[in-house]
Amino acid sequence: MKKIGIADTTFARFDMGNAAINELKTKDTGFNVIRYSVPGVKDLPVACKKLFEEQNCDIVMALGMPGAKPIDKQCAHEASTALIQTQLLCNKHILEVFVHEDEAKDEKELAWLADKRSREHAINALDLLFKPEKLVKKAGKGFREGFEDAGSLRS
Amino acid sequence: MKKIGIADTTFARFDMGNAAINELKTKDTGFNVIRYSVPGVKDLPVACKKLFEEQNCDIVMALGMPGAKPIDKQCAHEASTALIQTQLLCNKHILEVFVHEDEAKDEKELAWLADKRSREHAINALDLLFKPEKLVKKAGKGFREGFEDAGSLRS
Amino acid sequence: MKKIGIADTTFARFDMGNAAINELKTKDTGFNVIRYSVPGVKDLPVACKKLFEEQNCDIVMALGMPGAKPIDKQCAHEASTALIQTQLLCNKHILEVFVHEDEAKDEKELAWLADKRSREHAINALDLLFKPEKLVKKAGKGFREGFEDAGSLRS
Amino acid sequence: MKKIGIADTTFARFDMGNAAINELKTKDTGFNVIRYSVPGVKDLPVACKKLFEEQNCDIVMALGMPGAKPIDKQCAHEASTALIQTQLLCNKHILEVFVHEDEAKDEKELAWLADKRSREHAINALDLLFKPEKLVKKAGKGFREGFEDAGSLRS
Amino acid sequence: MKKIGIADTTFARFDMGNAAINELKTKDTGFNVIRYSVPGVKDLPVACKKLFEEQNCDIVMALGMPGAKPIDKQCAHEASTALIQTQLLCNKHILEVFVHEDEAKDEKELAWLADKRSREHAINALDLLFKPEKLVKKAGKGFREGFEDAGSLRS
Repeated sequence: MKKIGIADTTFARFDMGNAAINELKTKDTGFNVIRYSVPGVKDLPVACKKLFEEQNCDIVMALGMPGAKPIDKQCAHEASTALIQTQLLCNKHILEVFVHEDEAKDEKELAWLADKRSREHAINALDLLFKPEKLVKKAGKGFREGFEDAGSLRS
Repeated sequence: MKKIGIADTTFARFDMGNAAINELKTKDTGFNVIRYSVPGVKDLPVACKKLFEEQNCDIVMALGMPGAKPIDKQCAHEASTALIQTQLLCNKHILEVFVHEDEAKDEKELAWLADKRSREHAINALDLLFKPEKLVKKAGKGFREGFEDAGSLRS
Repeated sequence: MKKIGIADTTFARFDMGNAAINELKTKDTGFNVIRYSVPGVKDLPVACKKLFEEQNCDIVMALGMPGAKPIDKQCAHEASTALIQTQLLCNKHILEVFVHEDEAKDEKELAWLADKRSREHAINALDLLFKPEKLVKKAGKGFREGFEDAGSLRS
Repeated sequence: MKKIGIADTTFARFDMGNAAINELKTKDTGFNVIRYSVPGVKDLPVACKKLFEEQNCDIVMALGMPGAKPIDKQCAHEASTALIQTQLLCNKHILEVFVHEDEAKDEKELAWLADKRSREHAINALDLLFKPEKLVKKAGKGFREGFEDAGSLRS
Repeated sequence: MKKIGIADTTFARFDMGNAAINELKTKDTGFNVIRYSVPGVKDLPVACKKLFEEQNCDIVMALGMPGAKPIDKQCAHEASTALIQTQLLCNKHILEVFVHEDEAKDEKELAWLADKRSREHAINALDLLFKPEKLVKKAGKGFREGFEDAGSLRS
């Protein structure tokens, strides 16, 4: 049975891991979910690597909510860079689900965004794992996770 | 028979993968094309690595359309960095074909640019794979993909 | 018996290593502590790797206090990037405990912050090592190390 | 017999590869030159790696002419980072010879600079390969490639 | 007998390698020094790796003097990043001794700074190699190399 890893943080101000797990279990069956929580986004890369190598996960979602200060942006950049490196080391996908604290106009919208983006990337994870042909059909059509889709260019 | 991988995204607002495949098949024969679509540009590096290692591709085109916001620029930078790392890990070329949303004056020109750049890099891919001597002849002459060539310096 | 590594610097203006060790020994038993001091934050990554590979540490805390100038920020960025790489190479956690000289309003607050953040991350280290389920319970609740917790979003 | 690799681009607006090869052959003998041309600077790292691993080169010159736009600067940064990584992977020197389009006041000076820098780095390549003691004698004396030497500090 | 590597550049405008070697030989005995000079700071990482792997050095000092222009800052950043990577690959320390041309008010002070920082890091190298306990005693006390020590925070 396939295994989906959920790596999240105690720094995030919304339980994105729970939202992702809820969506996964609502949409499909036939897989196990393993959750691993760490302090912040810079702790996520090795957490993901351990989910692949010690827990045999087939795909991982890495969820985090970087703050709005320049140092937070830099931490997010360092974490993102290493999340991609981790994928190259393990030959498996990690779906990075980051919500930046300054993406929304208030706390309510930020919570909505964190929930929606986590759920939409949960579906991406299922597609990458079980139905990659669905992503080929959606290629080049301007899909977004969280806010509204941008759609195809008018030409 | 040689294999050419096409990695593209559901985030892009133009079907660059299709443009590249169309150009490849129009210009030459004697190779297979394998397409792999992922959500965004940061998912491309591992997709390319899987195309090399699991699908035995000889060269890959990585096509994406980063947005215009600072966070999008940063994502593109992270993806580019890892696409080069992937080439070093696999000893094979990946042609990065990124079109930035703010490179064109409107949606129509952006679609034209995405199409043209994808097609011109498809020819680069064929040259790298089958006729590397053609690139030596073009060296130092100011070629561009998409917009007009810059040409040689007037000295 | 588990081993916890403490890597710190002569550049820091507060003895963060001592604070961390004091907190570790106050909170729990059943582990050994090994300390390794280096000149600056850019010397920490290889120090941590040596703590893992030559001293068999199970987790490491990397403590530093980058200065306020742009070059100091860049050094911290380079160090952070490599601390994450080190974790990926060793498959073990490094808790980065950096206090930036411009985070506090005066020297007194900076000393308080360096002490508090070192101690709170010492507890994170113990949780990662001995009680990872505690971090799952805290996930998504806006915890911070040093200054006040941000808490959950009001939605 | 030693082998010197020349990796250059079709993007450059001056034939830097040709200038380097001409200088190498004028200054010395007893080595072979292998040229490999790619579209842009981000294609250079894997080209250099292939020159080392598939063509057995002992040293490589990587020549490119990044444009003046921010995205060009970023591409150059990504390429430079990976050129250093390639050296670490292969334990051999790559002399990066980049001329930035905005380094010169007009096209004529830019062509002059591209020619001069390529030729001066060709001599560095020969020194690294055949006469490393020459570089020790020049150490700390403010040498530059292209524009005028800065010289030693007056103290 | 231990071996200390000295990697420096022809770009630097002060003979930092010589200052470091002079300090090493004045302060201690029982080790050999091996010097390797390269054109610029971006050539230092592979030079250090070769000093470790081909010359069996136990520690290396990498000395350079980056210029004041933005491109020089970027080169220094790329070099620093790779110097840390080299340490991780070799499990040995490299003491980066960079003096930025804009750190001093004139050429005389810059020469003084380059000399002093090289010498103070030479002592760090000796301590890391022979007396690591000395660094533990200095931890968290605000030491600097070159300019005056910052000292401990007043709290």
